[in-house]
Amino acid sequence: MPRPVTVRFLAGGEGPWRIDHVVAVTGVCLPVARRLFIVDGDDDGFAERDPPAWAITAFTSNERYLQRAERAALASRQEPLGRPQATCAAMLPIRKSDAWWDLPQDERRSIIEERSRHIRIGLDYLPAVARRLYHCRDLGEPFDFVTWFEFAPVASAAFDELLARLRATEEWSYVQREVDVRLSR
Amino acid sequence: MPRPVTVRFLAGGEGPWRIDHVVAVTGVCLPVARRLFIVDGDDDGFAERDPPAWAITAFTSNERYLQRAERAALASRQEPLGRPQATCAAMLPIRKSDAWWDLPQDERRSIIEERSRHIRIGLDYLPAVARRLYHCRDLGEPFDFVTWFEFAPVASAAFDELLARLRATEEWSYVQREVDVRLSR
Repeated sequence: MPRPVTVRFLAGGEGPWRIDHVVAVTGVCLPVARRLFIVDGDDDGFAERDPPAWAITAFTSNERYLQRAERAALASRQEPLGRPQATCAAMLPIRKSDAWWDLPQDERRSIIEERSRHIRIGLDYLPAVARRLYHCRDLGEPFDFVTWFEFAPVASAAFDELLARLRATEEWSYVQREVDVRLSR
Repeated sequence: MPRPVTVRFLAGGEGPWRIDHVVAVTGVCLPVARRLFIVDGDDDGFAERDPPAWAITAFTSNERYLQRAERAALASRQEPLGRPQATCAAMLPIRKSDAWWDLPQDERRSIIEERSRHIRIGLDYLPAVARRLYHCRDLGEPFDFVTWFEFAPVASAAFDELLARLRATEEWSYVQREVDVRLSR
């Protein structure tokens, strides 16, 4: 597992990803913007001419809930980001409630997997949907996580089904704010 | 549980804590400095005249391993930082190995508590020793954690015993770098 990497999601007039639409699933939406640039931690070559419409800083980290067999099942099926045919992306910034963060580790784990089957549901959409989780609660951002997904246009309906199944779980009852940003390149 | 707070540990010529001695327990030591200033995330009133001898940025976060009964046991005995009689402090920056971070969540938990009794050992030194854990691996720091301890001079021997017991555990076999900074005010 590589060391954590910090990235900055910059929405504005520039970037390789076109923002096709933005929906507030729960809570307040994000401002309108045309394009998204993801600045890697070590990349200081990017400077937007104008201030971004919005920006979120977040990092990859160690796994917080996965057990060994689950990790092996994911690893045997998942594919990396950046596949040429995966021209669709979804960015889901999520904030969970204080009640969620007040739960001890083992109870959060129980809700996520034993009761909501979050990992198990995700497996059903591999390898079509590639995924990376970023954390941002510890940085004082208005969201706790950003999940980034990439898939081919043909997998769009399957991806919507994945989200619908996750949003119907007990885990999602703790989601206080969720914005669904859809992109293409 | 409050939202995470980011602090900056600045070692140099200024600050309320005098650095009495610094020992490299494992790996490379930190440079010599006279005093320590802990800058709170929201405190921009501090600007050292000279560049710090060393600086570490770290944040408090949600609990990563505690179960509900353990949290209750800690809460019933622990006391806050900042007690007037607690004029001794210890700052322990620690980095664990890649092998540690490659372990899945449940195996890290097993090593920490079921096999090393980290939480159970800590309980034996409450309320004499007050403690706060900061995380910094996700920020790209050369350490993964900083643990900050405060205690009265009379508890110094007990504190040394606590560290000796922790350093004898299986968990500590994953510690790749540890610096022991002792301070007083």
